[in-house]
Amino acid sequence: MVDILHRVGAVAPLEEVYRAVATPEGIAGWWTTETSGASEVGGKLVFRFGEVGGFDMEIRELDPRGRVRWRVTDGPAEWIGTEVDWRLEQRGEWTIVQFKHEGWREPVEFMNHCSTKWATFLISLKDYVETGHGRPAPDDVKISDWH
Amino acid sequence: MVDILHRVGAVAPLEEVYRAVATPEGIAGWWTTETSGASEVGGKLVFRFGEVGGFDMEIRELDPRGRVRWRVTDGPAEWIGTEVDWRLEQRGEWTIVQFKHEGWREPVEFMNHCSTKWATFLISLKDYVETGHGRPAPDDVKISDWH
Repeated sequence: MVDILHRVGAVAPLEEVYRAVATPEGIAGWWTTETSGASEVGGKLVFRFGEVGGFDMEIRELDPRGRVRWRVTDGPAEWIGTEVDWRLEQRGEWTIVQFKHEGWREPVEFMNHCSTKWATFLISLKDYVETGHGRPAPDDVKISDWH
Repeated sequence: MVDILHRVGAVAPLEEVYRAVATPEGIAGWWTTETSGASEVGGKLVFRFGEVGGFDMEIRELDPRGRVRWRVTDGPAEWIGTEVDWRLEQRGEWTIVQFKHEGWREPVEFMNHCSTKWATFLISLKDYVETGHGRPAPDDVKISDWH
């Protein structure tokens, strides 16, 4: 098993960062505008990226103290069964985001792409909570021939 | 051992991307302007980031067909002994960059920071070879309280 790991920080209260990763409205501000679903444990989140497809995830954990966890239930074969884990921690004026997309079976080229792409979305998340403006798809940063 | 893995693509000839990762002049265009050293196997590259410090690396491999490898010989304790591996491949108008920073002893928080930070520098590399303008330090993207 291999994991994608990242860390960003935003000058924003933990509650705001939590809202941005725990609710469909928040996620739509930095990952993809086509986000819908229910913000509750066991609820389903649906993420779409126009014609490219997307992901369905089940919410496994929601803790306003700074913990969110999703499990991928539909999407590209490599993603199914992987989990996305968020840990938020307030440190002074910063909220630190520890991000993990874990349980990849192999470090395939597509995983490397997703690692870089996640970084761009985490910076989008940072910008969203700091300024109100992220770069969710379809306005996301294109990093290669794979988007 | 844990690895940082990324993948970006640039619309540029492989030779240009190779030059950007194989020579101090190229690296200064996207990673840090304070880059010096000799572009030869066994040669030493010195990367500095103002007062923050920096890294010394030994070049282990240089192959204009698309392979570069460095070994970290000085810098933060977590970096020493790790290796940075570049594989470039031309695919049509794209040059695909497979990046690996391998041999981390543990997935510590600092590694997660470096993972995200490398992504921003890889996009800086992409911009540099595509447009002539990257964002090397000290003009790099600040991603958190750790820079």
